[in-house]
Amino acid sequence: MNRNRIIVDAMGGDNAPEEILKGAVFACKESSTLQVVFVGDEERIKKQLKKLDIKGLNFEIVDAGDVITMEDSPKTAVEAKPDASINVATRLLAEEKGSALVSAGNTGATVLSCAKNLRRIEGVERGALAAIFPAMKHKASDPGKTIMLDVGATLQCSPLQLVQFAIMGIHYARRVLEVEKPRVALLNIGEEETKGHEGLVATYSLLKKIEDTNFIGNVEGKDVLRGIADVIVCEGMVGNILLKALEGAAEMSVETGKRIWKKSLIAKLGFTLLAPKLKKVKKRLDYSEYGGAPILGFEKLIIKSHGRSKAKAIKNALLMAERSLKQDLVNSIKKDVQQYNQVLFSEYEKDMVNKLY
Amino acid sequence: MNRNRIIVDAMGGDNAPEEILKGAVFACKESSTLQVVFVGDEERIKKQLKKLDIKGLNFEIVDAGDVITMEDSPKTAVEAKPDASINVATRLLAEEKGSALVSAGNTGATVLSCAKNLRRIEGVERGALAAIFPAMKHKASDPGKTIMLDVGATLQCSPLQLVQFAIMGIHYARRVLEVEKPRVALLNIGEEETKGHEGLVATYSLLKKIEDTNFIGNVEGKDVLRGIADVIVCEGMVGNILLKALEGAAEMSVETGKRIWKKSLIAKLGFTLLAPKLKKVKKRLDYSEYGGAPILGFEKLIIKSHGRSKAKAIKNALLMAERSLKQDLVNSIKKDVQQYNQVLFSEYEKDMVNKLY
Repeated sequence: MNRNRIIVDAMGGDNAPEEILKGAVFACKESSTLQVVFVGDEERIKKQLKKLDIKGLNFEIVDAGDVITMEDSPKTAVEAKPDASINVATRLLAEEKGSALVSAGNTGATVLSCAKNLRRIEGVERGALAAIFPAMKHKASDPGKTIMLDVGATLQCSPLQLVQFAIMGIHYARRVLEVEKPRVALLNIGEEETKGHEGLVATYSLLKKIEDTNFIGNVEGKDVLRGIADVIVCEGMVGNILLKALEGAAEMSVETGKRIWKKSLIAKLGFTLLAPKLKKVKKRLDYSEYGGAPILGFEKLIIKSHGRSKAKAIKNALLMAERSLKQDLVNSIKKDVQQYNQVLFSEYEKDMVNKLY
Repeated sequence: MNRNRIIVDAMGGDNAPEEILKGAVFACKESSTLQVVFVGDEERIKKQLKKLDIKGLNFEIVDAGDVITMEDSPKTAVEAKPDASINVATRLLAEEKGSALVSAGNTGATVLSCAKNLRRIEGVERGALAAIFPAMKHKASDPGKTIMLDVGATLQCSPLQLVQFAIMGIHYARRVLEVEKPRVALLNIGEEETKGHEGLVATYSLLKKIEDTNFIGNVEGKDVLRGIADVIVCEGMVGNILLKALEGAAEMSVETGKRIWKKSLIAKLGFTLLAPKLKKVKKRLDYSEYGGAPILGFEKLIIKSHGRSKAKAIKNALLMAERSLKQDLVNSIKKDVQQYNQVLFSEYEKDMVNKLY
């Protein structure tokens, strides 16, 4: 197996397969070491690739007869469509036919298909879906990136699982997002150590024990976008609802803007004058710059790109995936988790026993 | 006891006691049936009231020697400062010296002081802190209001507790916010009935059984501001983090706007042209229009106003509190909860037994 072979779900997402293929081709042109396996309707893929300049590029195609759409119910579809591109893709990963996967398809189906077909990293109890968003730092020129996990793979988590998410997030921030010493925070309802339910209080005390980590304590919902932490850890239920609420708020701001735009000529002029500045803000918030968010905890790395991804996002997702392979992300997570499992399990067990008796 | 006697924490909030007193005086002028009990530093209150036109108004003052500040840790302060205005106020409520309470003070301390001194409505298992926010409906002229609960009083909730929150929210929406037939939704990670953890799936099936209720199913984080539900039910952990994230996002939009404003003359002109429209949006989002959010589940109603409240918000909070008294909110909640406890407990117990054996 070539270490830099990345499997691409060519059929997943609103703009599949056209933009997916285009993005992958762009990525291959930027990185000569990249090898790609396209999974999907072979005929369509071939036809589409003919339109692109693919001379000298390193790729193969694996046919998949079915597709899980964005509207499909994840649970049902993953079971009912064994030949869907995402299922074929995760099986290929399990068979070591590639080292990472990029998909812009149905998020729930991607997570479930991974859980079904992939082995978790030894010692990692649960998988986590991460979200990556731009953080508003003091310097507007350097927006930074925050990784928040979990945002929907594991709805309720034990303290140990949350600590493992922290470790996975730290490695991703350090090795892929290039944050030298990631600041880690626990999402909670207040800053004090005693805040939140029992599980969060226990998580706080475990996170303090991880060496070499810049644990800055609890952060609240209002801090999430402020860039005060590089890694934010939370249960999947909270993370999912928070993330979607922020997306909803952003969409609504845009809608409100459009409504104002339509209503008056003076407003139109106002917006026109602001356009260059608004474009800058938009660029900073543009998810396609970040390519996608990782699904962590499995033996292979998965990058889940936004369903609306165009070529640029897919290209960036592939380059991120390749960087994670070059940085040996999975193995470095495995080593750390196993080390801390030993330390923390015993600490945690001690705490629990002290509490009970 | 006069039914319309409302206790006011005169010392709570960033603008206490000046704006609190002013707001209460305004409310008394609008409603001749309103009676107010001010709790706080008697001398300061008297001195301040002298500056206001209080002729013919119906109020008394109860001295309280201490204050819990916005920076105090709620848990510690409620215990350490028995004579703080909020503690004196909740004790007065417990002694039937008033029927409702308005405070703009430390939210956590208000909730804890209520939990400490007040009896819960018979049959209600947990108290809930609600948030009320403007909902963007189709008609921009009628923004509507959404009540979401819990946002921080009960971090983790059983299905039955969530159903009780729904009942309390429905009554508040109907009787105080004047929504004729409130649409009720459960905050979850997806729309389907099977989404979310076990507790949420159970809650969904219980909510379906409540008669005369417009239960519209699950809503996601992105729907919260869209006004598709009038009552949104969630666990306190999720609700608190979601609410603060939205507040944070709003603050950050304003900051970004200010940064742009400062940077260029053209941008200044752009904003100036947009000013009338932006003002309209701001007015729609202005919390002071809604006065405050209720803490529900206790024998007395508490309205928690925003810490930054000025006179207008306090006036509206008092008028809302009086409306809830006139509408007999607490008793109507009590009746409904007791009725549904009977129906649902047995249903719920049956379900649980079926699941276990």
